[in-house]
Amino acid sequence: MTAPSFPPEAIALVHRMADASGAVIRPHFRSGVAIVDKADESPVTIADRDAETAIRRLIEDAFPDHGILGEEHGAVRLDAEFVWVLDPIDGTKAFISGVPVFGTLIALLQGGRPVLGVIDQPISRERWVGAIGHGTTLNGQPVRTRACAALGRATLFATSPDMFKGDEIPAFERVRQSVKMTRWGTDCYATAMVASGHGDLIVESSLQTYDFCALVPVIEGAGGIVTDWEGQPLGLHSGHRMALAGDARTHAAALERIAG
Amino acid sequence: MTAPSFPPEAIALVHRMADASGAVIRPHFRSGVAIVDKADESPVTIADRDAETAIRRLIEDAFPDHGILGEEHGAVRLDAEFVWVLDPIDGTKAFISGVPVFGTLIALLQGGRPVLGVIDQPISRERWVGAIGHGTTLNGQPVRTRACAALGRATLFATSPDMFKGDEIPAFERVRQSVKMTRWGTDCYATAMVASGHGDLIVESSLQTYDFCALVPVIEGAGGIVTDWEGQPLGLHSGHRMALAGDARTHAAALERIAG
Repeated sequence: MTAPSFPPEAIALVHRMADASGAVIRPHFRSGVAIVDKADESPVTIADRDAETAIRRLIEDAFPDHGILGEEHGAVRLDAEFVWVLDPIDGTKAFISGVPVFGTLIALLQGGRPVLGVIDQPISRERWVGAIGHGTTLNGQPVRTRACAALGRATLFATSPDMFKGDEIPAFERVRQSVKMTRWGTDCYATAMVASGHGDLIVESSLQTYDFCALVPVIEGAGGIVTDWEGQPLGLHSGHRMALAGDARTHAAALERIAG
Repeated sequence: MTAPSFPPEAIALVHRMADASGAVIRPHFRSGVAIVDKADESPVTIADRDAETAIRRLIEDAFPDHGILGEEHGAVRLDAEFVWVLDPIDGTKAFISGVPVFGTLIALLQGGRPVLGVIDQPISRERWVGAIGHGTTLNGQPVRTRACAALGRATLFATSPDMFKGDEIPAFERVRQSVKMTRWGTDCYATAMVASGHGDLIVESSLQTYDFCALVPVIEGAGGIVTDWEGQPLGLHSGHRMALAGDARTHAAALERIAG
Protein backbone atom coordinates (compact mmCIF):
# COMPACT_ATOMS: atom_id res chain seq x y z
CA MET A 1 0.00 0.00 0.00
CA THR A 2 1.26 3.46 -0.87
CA ALA A 3 1.23 6.25 1.70
CA PRO A 4 -2.28 7.61 2.15
CA SER A 5 -3.05 10.79 0.28
CA PHE A 6 -6.65 11.58 1.08
CA PRO A 7 -8.01 15.01 0.11
CA PRO A 8 -6.87 17.44 2.83
CA GLU A 9 -10.28 19.11 2.85
CA ALA A 10 -11.66 15.82 4.14
CA ILE A 11 -10.46 16.71 7.67
CA ALA A 12 -12.53 19.88 7.75
CA LEU A 13 -15.42 17.96 6.24
CA VAL A 14 -15.50 15.30 8.96
CA HIS A 15 -16.02 18.03 11.54
CA ARG A 16 -19.00 19.31 9.55
CA MET A 17 -20.29 15.73 9.28
CA ALA A 18 -20.04 15.16 13.03
CA ASP A 19 -21.63 18.57 13.70
CA ALA A 20 -24.54 17.71 11.42
CA SER A 21 -24.93 14.23 12.87
CA GLY A 22 -24.84 15.46 16.46
CA ALA A 23 -27.46 18.11 15.74
CA VAL A 24 -29.77 15.38 14.46
CA ILE A 25 -29.04 12.97 17.31
CA ARG A 26 -29.17 15.21 20.40
CA PRO A 27 -32.94 15.98 20.36
CA HIS A 28 -33.71 12.24 20.25
CA PHE A 29 -31.50 11.30 23.23
CA ARG A 30 -33.69 10.45 26.24
CA SER A 31 -36.60 12.03 24.34
CA GLY A 32 -39.03 9.15 24.90
CA VAL A 33 -39.61 6.83 27.78
CA ALA A 34 -41.76 4.35 25.87
CA ILE A 35 -40.32 0.95 25.06
CA VAL A 36 -39.78 0.73 21.31
CA ASP A 37 -40.48 -2.59 19.67
CA LYS A 38 -38.69 -3.51 16.49
CA ALA A 39 -39.49 -6.57 14.44
CA ASP A 40 -35.78 -7.45 14.26
CA GLU A 41 -35.16 -6.64 17.96
CA SER A 42 -32.38 -4.28 16.91
CA PRO A 43 -32.65 -0.93 18.73
CA VAL A 44 -32.13 1.24 15.68
CA THR A 45 -33.60 4.69 16.03
CA ILE A 46 -34.86 7.51 13.89
CA ALA A 47 -31.80 9.43 15.03
CA ASP A 48 -29.50 6.84 13.49
CA ARG A 49 -31.23 6.94 10.11
CA ASP A 50 -31.60 10.71 9.91
CA ALA A 51 -28.05 11.35 11.07
CA GLU A 52 -26.69 9.04 8.35
CA THR A 53 -28.80 10.88 5.78
CA ALA A 54 -27.27 14.18 6.91
CA ILE A 55 -23.72 12.81 6.73
CA ARG A 56 -24.24 11.18 3.31
CA ARG A 57 -25.56 14.43 1.89
CA LEU A 58 -22.32 16.19 2.86
CA ILE A 59 -20.25 13.43 1.26
CA GLU A 60 -22.29 13.43 -1.96
CA ASP A 61 -21.91 17.21 -2.21
CA ALA A 62 -18.16 17.31 -1.58
CA PHE A 63 -16.98 14.02 -3.07
CA PRO A 64 -19.60 12.62 -5.47
CA ASP A 65 -17.18 9.99 -6.77
CA HIS A 66 -16.41 8.55 -3.32
CA GLY A 67 -18.03 5.34 -2.15
CA ILE A 68 -20.20 5.13 0.96
CA LEU A 69 -20.99 2.23 3.27
CA GLY A 70 -23.46 3.03 6.03
CA GLU A 71 -25.21 0.91 8.62
CA GLU A 72 -28.60 2.37 7.77
CA HIS A 73 -28.66 3.23 4.08
CA GLY A 74 -26.44 0.59 2.51
CA ALA A 75 -23.53 0.80 0.08
CA VAL A 76 -22.67 2.76 -3.07
CA ARG A 77 -19.49 2.79 -5.19
CA LEU A 78 -17.52 0.43 -2.93
CA ASP A 79 -14.98 -0.03 -5.74
CA ALA A 80 -13.98 3.65 -5.57
CA GLU A 81 -10.47 4.55 -4.36
CA PHE A 82 -12.01 6.43 -1.45
CA VAL A 83 -14.89 4.95 0.54
CA TRP A 84 -16.61 6.43 3.59
CA VAL A 85 -17.82 4.04 6.28
CA LEU A 86 -20.48 5.38 8.65
CA ASP A 87 -22.23 4.43 11.87
CA PRO A 88 -24.05 7.45 13.30
CA ILE A 89 -24.93 5.68 16.56
CA ASP A 90 -22.42 3.03 17.54
CA GLY A 91 -23.71 1.70 20.84
CA THR A 92 -27.43 1.74 20.13
CA LYS A 93 -28.06 -0.13 23.40
CA ALA A 94 -26.32 2.67 25.28
CA PHE A 95 -28.28 5.29 23.33
CA ILE A 96 -31.69 3.79 23.99
CA SER A 97 -30.73 3.21 27.64
CA GLY A 98 -29.93 6.89 28.09
CA VAL A 99 -26.21 6.31 28.66
CA PRO A 100 -23.95 8.82 26.87
CA VAL A 101 -21.15 6.46 25.85
CA PHE A 102 -22.48 5.80 22.34
CA GLY A 103 -20.67 7.55 19.51
CA THR A 104 -20.88 8.64 15.91
CA LEU A 105 -18.29 6.79 13.82
CA ILE A 106 -17.06 8.25 10.53
CA ALA A 107 -14.20 6.72 8.55
CA LEU A 108 -12.54 7.48 5.23
CA LEU A 109 -10.84 4.50 3.60
CA GLN A 110 -8.30 4.61 0.78
CA GLY A 111 -7.83 1.39 -1.11
CA GLY A 112 -9.85 -0.37 1.56
CA ARG A 113 -7.67 0.86 4.48
CA PRO A 114 -8.90 3.44 7.01
CA VAL A 115 -6.87 6.68 6.78
CA LEU A 116 -9.16 9.15 8.61
CA GLY A 117 -11.50 8.41 11.51
CA VAL A 118 -13.82 10.20 13.91
CA ILE A 119 -15.35 9.12 17.22
CA ASP A 120 -17.82 11.82 18.21
CA GLN A 121 -19.80 11.81 21.48
CA PRO A 122 -22.58 14.31 20.80
CA ILE A 123 -23.89 14.54 24.39
CA SER A 124 -20.60 15.17 26.21
CA ARG A 125 -19.40 17.01 23.07
CA GLU A 126 -16.12 15.11 22.90
CA ARG A 127 -14.66 14.50 19.44
CA TRP A 128 -11.66 12.33 18.71
CA VAL A 129 -10.24 12.72 15.16
CA GLY A 130 -7.41 10.55 13.89
CA ALA A 131 -5.76 10.93 10.52
CA ILE A 132 -2.79 9.02 9.18
CA GLY A 133 0.10 11.47 9.15
CA HIS A 134 -1.70 13.99 11.35
CA GLY A 135 -2.00 12.21 14.74
CA THR A 136 -5.12 12.06 16.88
CA THR A 137 -6.84 14.89 18.72
CA LEU A 138 -9.62 15.23 21.31
CA ASN A 139 -11.45 18.50 20.72
CA GLY A 140 -8.36 19.77 18.93
CA GLN A 141 -5.81 18.75 21.56
CA PRO A 142 -3.35 15.95 20.73
CA VAL A 143 -3.85 12.70 22.66
CA ARG A 144 -1.48 9.76 23.15
CA THR A 145 -1.91 6.22 24.38
CA ARG A 146 -0.13 5.22 27.59
CA ALA A 147 2.60 2.63 28.00
CA CYS A 148 1.58 -0.82 29.22
CA ALA A 149 4.48 -3.23 29.16
CA ALA A 150 2.65 -6.35 30.34
CA LEU A 151 -0.83 -7.84 29.98
CA GLY A 152 -0.98 -8.25 33.76
CA ARG A 153 -1.04 -4.47 34.11
CA ALA A 154 -3.68 -3.87 31.44
CA THR A 155 -7.22 -2.56 31.71
CA LEU A 156 -9.34 -4.51 29.21
CA PHE A 157 -12.59 -3.25 27.66
CA ALA A 158 -15.24 -5.34 25.91
CA THR A 159 -18.82 -4.41 25.06
CA SER A 160 -20.56 -7.64 26.04
CA PRO A 161 -19.72 -11.26 26.84
CA ASP A 162 -22.46 -12.25 24.37
CA MET A 163 -20.36 -11.18 21.38
CA PHE A 164 -18.10 -14.23 21.66
CA LYS A 165 -19.18 -17.50 20.01
CA GLY A 166 -17.75 -21.03 20.03
CA ASP A 167 -13.94 -21.08 20.21
CA GLU A 168 -13.94 -17.33 20.75
CA ILE A 169 -15.26 -17.81 24.28
CA PRO A 170 -12.17 -19.59 25.67
CA ALA A 171 -9.90 -17.35 23.55
CA PHE A 172 -11.36 -14.22 25.13
CA GLU A 173 -11.34 -15.86 28.55
CA ARG A 174 -7.58 -16.47 28.28
CA VAL A 175 -7.08 -12.76 27.68
CA ARG A 176 -9.51 -11.73 30.42
CA GLN A 177 -7.79 -13.92 32.99
CA SER A 178 -4.42 -12.38 32.09
CA VAL A 179 -5.32 -8.72 32.56
CA LYS A 180 -5.51 -6.62 35.69
CA MET A 181 -9.10 -5.50 35.24
CA THR A 182 -11.99 -5.89 32.79
CA ARG A 183 -14.58 -3.23 32.13
CA TRP A 184 -17.73 -4.06 30.16
CA GLY A 185 -20.17 -2.11 28.06
CA THR A 186 -18.27 0.89 26.75
CA ASP A 187 -18.79 0.50 22.97
CA CYS A 188 -16.68 2.85 20.81
CA TYR A 189 -16.02 5.04 23.84
CA ALA A 190 -13.51 2.37 24.92
CA THR A 191 -11.31 3.15 21.91
CA ALA A 192 -11.47 6.83 22.74
CA MET A 193 -10.34 6.00 26.29
CA VAL A 194 -7.41 3.86 25.06
CA ALA A 195 -6.42 6.61 22.59
CA SER A 196 -6.44 9.13 25.46
CA GLY A 197 -4.39 6.89 27.76
CA HIS A 198 -7.09 5.81 30.24
CA GLY A 199 -7.20 2.15 29.22
CA ASP A 200 -4.98 -0.40 27.48
CA LEU A 201 -6.76 -3.08 25.50
CA ILE A 202 -9.98 -3.92 23.68
CA VAL A 203 -10.79 -7.43 22.44
CA GLU A 204 -14.07 -7.85 20.57
CA SER A 205 -15.80 -10.05 18.04
CA SER A 206 -19.01 -10.16 16.00
CA LEU A 207 -18.27 -6.65 14.71
CA GLN A 208 -19.57 -5.07 11.54
CA THR A 209 -17.27 -3.17 9.17
CA TYR A 210 -18.80 0.14 10.26
CA ASP A 211 -18.11 -0.73 13.93
CA PHE A 212 -14.33 -0.63 13.59
CA CYS A 213 -13.15 1.33 10.51
CA ALA A 214 -13.23 4.72 12.27
CA LEU A 215 -11.35 3.32 15.26
CA VAL A 216 -8.25 2.46 13.21
CA PRO A 217 -6.93 5.99 12.45
CA VAL A 218 -7.96 7.20 15.93
CA ILE A 219 -5.92 4.56 17.75
CA GLU A 220 -3.01 4.51 15.26
CA GLY A 221 -2.76 8.31 15.30
CA ALA A 222 -2.53 8.19 19.10
CA GLY A 223 0.36 5.71 19.01
CA GLY A 224 -1.62 2.50 19.40
CA ILE A 225 -2.20 -0.54 17.23
CA VAL A 226 -5.23 -2.47 16.04
CA THR A 227 -5.58 -5.65 13.99
CA ASP A 228 -7.89 -8.61 13.70
CA TRP A 229 -7.32 -11.61 15.99
CA GLU A 230 -4.76 -13.02 13.53
CA GLY A 231 -2.72 -9.81 13.46
CA GLN A 232 -3.99 -8.68 10.04
CA PRO A 233 -5.02 -5.09 9.29
CA LEU A 234 -8.66 -4.09 9.63
CA GLY A 235 -10.49 -2.53 6.74
CA LEU A 236 -13.22 -2.86 4.17
CA HIS A 237 -12.44 -6.51 3.45
CA SER A 238 -10.92 -7.65 6.74
CA GLY A 239 -12.00 -9.99 9.48
CA HIS A 240 -14.50 -8.80 12.06
CA ARG A 241 -12.68 -9.65 15.27
CA MET A 242 -10.66 -6.83 16.79
CA ALA A 243 -7.64 -6.61 19.09
CA LEU A 244 -6.80 -2.98 19.87
CA ALA A 245 -4.14 -1.70 22.26
CA GLY A 246 -2.36 1.47 23.24
CA ASP A 247 0.99 -0.31 23.50
CA ALA A 248 2.26 -2.80 20.89
CA ARG A 249 3.55 -5.07 23.68
CA THR A 250 0.05 -5.40 25.14
CA HIS A 251 -1.31 -6.11 21.68
CA ALA A 252 1.25 -8.82 20.95
CA ALA A 253 0.63 -10.49 24.32
CA ALA A 254 -3.15 -10.41 23.73
CA LEU A 255 -2.78 -12.05 20.30
CA GLU A 256 -0.68 -14.79 21.93
CA ARG A 257 -3.38 -15.50 24.51
CA ILE A 258 -6.06 -15.50 21.80
CA ALA A 259 -4.06 -18.03 19.77
CA GLY A 260 -3.98 -20.29 22.86
CA MET B 1 -41.54 0.36 60.71
CA THR B 2 -43.06 3.79 61.36
CA ALA B 3 -43.23 6.37 58.60
CA PRO B 4 -39.83 7.96 58.06
CA SER B 5 -39.32 11.30 59.73
CA PHE B 6 -35.78 12.30 58.90
CA PRO B 7 -34.69 15.88 59.63
CA PRO B 8 -36.01 18.01 56.74
CA GLU B 9 -32.76 19.96 56.61
CA ALA B 10 -31.10 16.72 55.52
CA ILE B 11 -32.36 17.28 51.97
CA ALA B 12 -30.53 20.59 51.67
CA LEU B 13 -27.51 19.00 53.29
CA VAL B 14 -27.21 16.18 50.75
CA HIS B 15 -26.89 18.77 48.01
CA ARG B 16 -24.03 20.40 49.90
CA MET B 17 -22.46 16.97 50.42
CA ALA B 18 -22.67 16.15 46.70
CA ASP B 19 -21.34 19.61 45.80
CA ALA B 20 -18.37 19.14 48.13
CA SER B 21 -17.71 15.62 46.91
CA GLY B 22 -17.89 16.61 43.25
CA ALA B 23 -15.48 19.50 43.79
CA VAL B 24 -12.96 17.03 45.25
CA ILE B 25 -13.50 14.40 42.55
CA ARG B 26 -13.52 16.43 39.32
CA PRO B 27 -9.84 17.50 39.30
CA HIS B 28 -8.78 13.84 39.66
CA PHE B 29 -10.89 12.54 36.75
CA ARG B 30 -8.62 11.67 33.80
CA SER B 31 -5.86 13.61 35.59
CA GLY B 32 -3.22 10.92 35.20
CA VAL B 33 -2.45 8.48 32.44
CA ALA B 34 -0.10 6.31 34.48
CA ILE B 35 -1.25 2.85 35.53
CA VAL B 36 -1.76 2.87 39.28
CA ASP B 37 -0.79 -0.26 41.16
CA LYS B 38 -2.50 -1.08 44.43
CA ALA B 39 -1.44 -3.90 46.68
CA ASP B 40 -5.04 -5.09 46.91
CA GLU B 41 -5.70 -4.58 43.17
CA SER B 42 -8.71 -2.45 44.05
CA PRO B 43 -8.76 0.79 42.02
CA VAL B 44 -9.48 3.09 44.92
CA THR B 45 -8.28 6.61 44.34
CA ILE B 46 -7.27 9.65 46.30
CA ALA B 47 -10.46 11.26 45.06
CA ASP B 48 -12.57 8.59 46.79
CA ARG B 49 -10.85 9.05 50.15
CA ASP B 50 -10.78 12.85 50.10
CA ALA B 51 -14.38 13.12 48.92
CA GLU B 52 -15.55 10.90 51.76
CA THR B 53 -13.60 13.05 54.20
CA ALA B 54 -15.39 16.15 52.88
CA ILE B 55 -18.82 14.50 53.15
CA ARG B 56 -18.20 13.15 56.66
CA ARG B 57 -17.13 16.58 57.85
CA LEU B 58 -20.50 18.02 56.78
CA ILE B 59 -22.35 15.20 58.56
CA GLU B 60 -20.33 15.58 61.76
CA ASP B 61 -21.00 19.32 61.77
CA ALA B 62 -24.75 19.07 61.14
CA PHE B 63 -25.68 15.81 62.86
CA PRO B 64 -22.97 14.79 65.32
CA ASP B 65 -25.16 12.07 66.82
CA HIS B 66 -25.82 10.35 63.45
CA GLY B 67 -23.95 7.22 62.50
CA ILE B 68 -21.76 6.97 59.39
CA LEU B 69 -20.72 3.99 57.27
CA GLY B 70 -18.31 4.80 54.47
CA GLU B 71 -16.37 2.67 52.02
CA GLU B 72 -13.11 4.46 52.76
CA HIS B 73 -13.15 5.54 56.39
CA GLY B 74 -15.17 2.83 58.12
CA ALA B 75 -18.09 2.99 60.56
CA VAL B 76 -19.12 5.05 63.58
CA ARG B 77 -22.31 4.98 65.70
CA LEU B 78 -24.07 2.33 63.58
CA ASP B 79 -26.57 1.86 66.44
CA ALA B 80 -27.86 5.44 66.03
CA GLU B 81 -31.44 5.96 64.76
CA PHE B 82 -30.04 7.78 61.71
CA VAL B 83 -27.04 6.40 59.85
CA TRP B 84 -25.42 7.80 56.70
CA VAL B 85 -24.01 5.34 54.16
CA LEU B 86 -21.47 6.74 51.71
CA ASP B 87 -19.63 5.71 48.56
CA PRO B 88 -18.04 8.77 46.95
CA ILE B 89 -17.01 6.87 43.82
CA ASP B 90 -19.30 3.96 43.00
CA GLY B 91 -17.90 2.55 39.78
CA THR B 92 -14.21 2.92 40.48
CA LYS B 93 -13.41 0.90 37.35
CA ALA B 94 -15.36 3.44 35.28
CA PHE B 95 -13.62 6.32 37.06
CA ILE B 96 -10.09 5.05 36.48
CA SER B 97 -10.99 4.15 32.88
CA GLY B 98 -12.08 7.73 32.20
CA VAL B 99 -15.75 6.82 31.66
CA PRO B 100 -18.21 9.26 33.29
CA VAL B 101 -20.82 6.76 34.48
CA PHE B 102 -19.45 6.42 38.02
CA GLY B 103 -21.39 8.20 40.73
CA THR B 104 -21.29 9.54 44.26
CA LEU B 105 -23.74 7.64 46.47
CA ILE B 106 -25.10 9.21 49.66
CA ALA B 107 -27.84 7.59 51.74
CA LEU B 108 -29.56 8.42 54.99
CA LEU B 109 -31.04 5.44 56.84
CA GLN B 110 -33.59 5.53 59.63
CA GLY B 111 -33.81 2.40 61.73
CA GLY B 112 -31.64 0.63 59.17
CA ARG B 113 -33.90 1.50 56.18
CA PRO B 114 -32.86 4.00 53.48
CA VAL B 115 -35.13 7.08 53.49
CA LEU B 116 -33.04 9.59 51.51
CA GLY B 117 -30.64 8.86 48.68
CA VAL B 118 -28.46 10.66 46.15
CA ILE B 119 -26.84 9.50 42.92
CA ASP B 120 -24.57 12.31 41.75
CA GLN B 121 -22.60 12.25 38.50
CA PRO B 122 -20.04 14.99 39.01
CA ILE B 123 -18.73 15.10 35.41
CA SER B 124 -22.05 15.34 33.55
CA ARG B 125 -23.41 17.27 36.57
CA GLU B 126 -26.53 15.15 36.87
CA ARG B 127 -27.94 14.64 40.36
CA TRP B 128 -30.78 12.29 41.24
CA VAL B 129 -32.22 12.80 44.74
CA GLY B 130 -34.88 10.50 46.16
CA ALA B 131 -36.59 10.97 49.52
CA ILE B 132 -39.40 8.92 50.96
CA GLY B 133 -42.47 11.13 50.84
CA HIS B 134 -40.84 13.64 48.48
CA GLY B 135 -40.40 11.68 45.22
CA THR B 136 -37.27 11.63 43.08
CA THR B 137 -35.77 14.47 41.07
CA LEU B 138 -33.02 14.86 38.46
CA ASN B 139 -31.46 18.30 38.84
CA GLY B 140 -34.65 19.42 40.54
CA GLN B 141 -37.10 18.04 37.98
CA PRO B 142 -39.33 15.10 38.98
CA VAL B 143 -38.57 11.79 37.28
CA ARG B 144 -40.69 8.65 37.00
CA THR B 145 -39.99 5.08 36.00
CA ARG B 146 -41.68 3.73 32.86
CA ALA B 147 -44.19 0.91 32.63
CA CYS B 148 -42.88 -2.50 31.63
CA ALA B 149 -45.59 -5.15 31.84
CA ALA B 150 -43.51 -8.17 30.88
CA LEU B 151 -39.94 -9.36 31.34
CA GLY B 152 -39.73 -10.00 27.60
CA ARG B 153 -39.96 -6.26 27.01
CA ALA B 154 -37.39 -5.26 29.62
CA THR B 155 -33.97 -3.69 29.26
CA LEU B 156 -31.70 -5.31 31.87
CA PHE B 157 -28.57 -3.70 33.32
CA ALA B 158 -25.76 -5.45 35.19
CA THR B 159 -22.29 -4.20 35.97
CA SER B 160 -20.28 -7.32 35.21
CA PRO B 161 -20.83 -11.05 34.65
CA ASP B 162 -18.04 -11.65 37.16
CA MET B 163 -20.22 -10.55 40.10
CA PHE B 164 -22.23 -13.79 40.02
CA LYS B 165 -20.90 -16.86 41.85
CA GLY B 166 -22.05 -20.47 42.09
CA ASP B 167 -25.83 -20.84 41.92
CA GLU B 168 -26.14 -17.14 41.14
CA ILE B 169 -24.77 -17.75 37.64
CA PRO B 170 -27.71 -19.86 36.38
CA ALA B 171 -30.15 -17.67 38.35
CA PHE B 172 -28.95 -14.55 36.58
CA GLU B 173 -28.82 -16.40 33.26
CA ARG B 174 -32.52 -17.28 33.58
CA VAL B 175 -33.31 -13.59 33.94
CA ARG B 176 -30.98 -12.55 31.14
CA GLN B 177 -32.49 -15.04 28.72
CA SER B 178 -35.98 -13.72 29.52
CA VAL B 179 -35.39 -10.04 28.80
CA LYS B 180 -35.33 -8.15 25.55
CA MET B 181 -31.85 -6.69 25.92
CA THR B 182 -28.95 -6.69 28.38
CA ARG B 183 -26.57 -3.81 28.85
CA TRP B 184 -23.37 -4.27 30.86
CA GLY B 185 -21.11 -1.98 32.82
CA THR B 186 -23.23 0.93 33.94
CA ASP B 187 -22.72 0.83 37.74
CA CYS B 188 -25.01 3.13 39.76
CA TYR B 189 -25.83 5.06 36.59
CA ALA B 190 -28.10 2.14 35.69
CA THR B 191 -30.38 2.92 38.65
CA ALA B 192 -30.51 6.55 37.58
CA MET B 193 -31.56 5.41 34.10
CA VAL B 194 -34.31 3.13 35.46
CA ALA B 195 -35.52 5.95 37.75
CA SER B 196 -35.70 8.26 34.72
CA GLY B 197 -37.56 5.72 32.59
CA HIS B 198 -34.78 4.70 30.18
CA GLY B 199 -34.39 1.13 31.42
CA ASP B 200 -36.39 -1.46 33.33
CA LEU B 201 -34.41 -3.86 35.47
CA ILE B 202 -31.15 -4.32 37.36
CA VAL B 203 -30.05 -7.65 38.82
CA GLU B 204 -26.76 -7.69 40.69
CA SER B 205 -24.87 -9.58 43.36
CA SER B 206 -21.67 -9.31 45.40
CA LEU B 207 -22.68 -5.79 46.45
CA GLN B 208 -21.54 -3.92 49.53
CA THR B 209 -23.99 -2.05 51.76
CA TYR B 210 -22.72 1.29 50.45
CA ASP B 211 -23.33 0.13 46.85
CA PHE B 212 -27.11 -0.06 47.19
CA CYS B 213 -28.45 2.02 50.14
CA ALA B 214 -28.61 5.28 48.16
CA LEU B 215 -30.37 3.54 45.27
CA VAL B 216 -33.40 2.57 47.37
CA PRO B 217 -35.01 6.02 47.89
CA VAL B 218 -34.07 7.09 44.35
CA ILE B 219 -35.89 4.18 42.71
CA GLU B 220 -38.78 4.07 45.21
CA GLY B 221 -39.34 7.82 44.92
CA ALA B 222 -39.54 7.44 41.14
CA GLY B 223 -42.22 4.74 41.39
CA GLY B 224 -40.00 1.68 41.20
CA ILE B 225 -39.18 -1.15 43.56
CA VAL B 226 -36.02 -2.76 44.89
CA THR B 227 -35.43 -5.76 47.14
CA ASP B 228 -32.90 -8.50 47.63
CA TRP B 229 -33.21 -11.68 45.53
CA GLU B 230 -35.66 -13.12 48.08
CA GLY B 231 -37.94 -10.08 47.94
CA GLN B 232 -36.78 -8.65 51.28
CA PRO B 233 -36.04 -4.94 51.79
CA LEU B 234 -32.50 -3.68 51.37
CA GLY B 235 -30.80 -1.77 54.16
CA LEU B 236 -28.06 -1.75 56.73
CA HIS B 237 -28.55 -5.40 57.69
CA SER B 238 -29.97 -6.85 54.48
CA GLY B 239 -28.71 -9.28 51.90
CA HIS B 240 -26.29 -8.06 49.25
CA ARG B 241 -28.03 -9.27 46.11
CA MET B 242 -30.26 -6.71 44.41
CA ALA B 243 -33.28 -6.88 42.09
CA LEU B 244 -34.40 -3.39 41.09
CA ALA B 245 -37.15 -2.49 38.63
CA GLY B 246 -39.17 0.46 37.45
CA ASP B 247 -42.37 -1.59 37.32
CA ALA B 248 -43.44 -4.00 40.08
CA ARG B 249 -44.54 -6.55 37.44
CA THR B 250 -41.02 -6.68 36.01
CA HIS B 251 -39.62 -7.05 39.51
CA ALA B 252 -41.95 -9.92 40.41
CA ALA B 253 -41.17 -11.74 37.16
CA ALA B 254 -37.44 -11.32 37.73
CA LEU B 255 -37.68 -12.76 41.26
CA GLU B 256 -39.56 -15.76 39.83
CA ARG B 257 -36.79 -16.41 37.29
CA ILE B 258 -34.14 -16.01 39.99
CA ALA B 259 -35.94 -18.58 42.16
CA GLY B 260 -35.82 -21.04 39.24
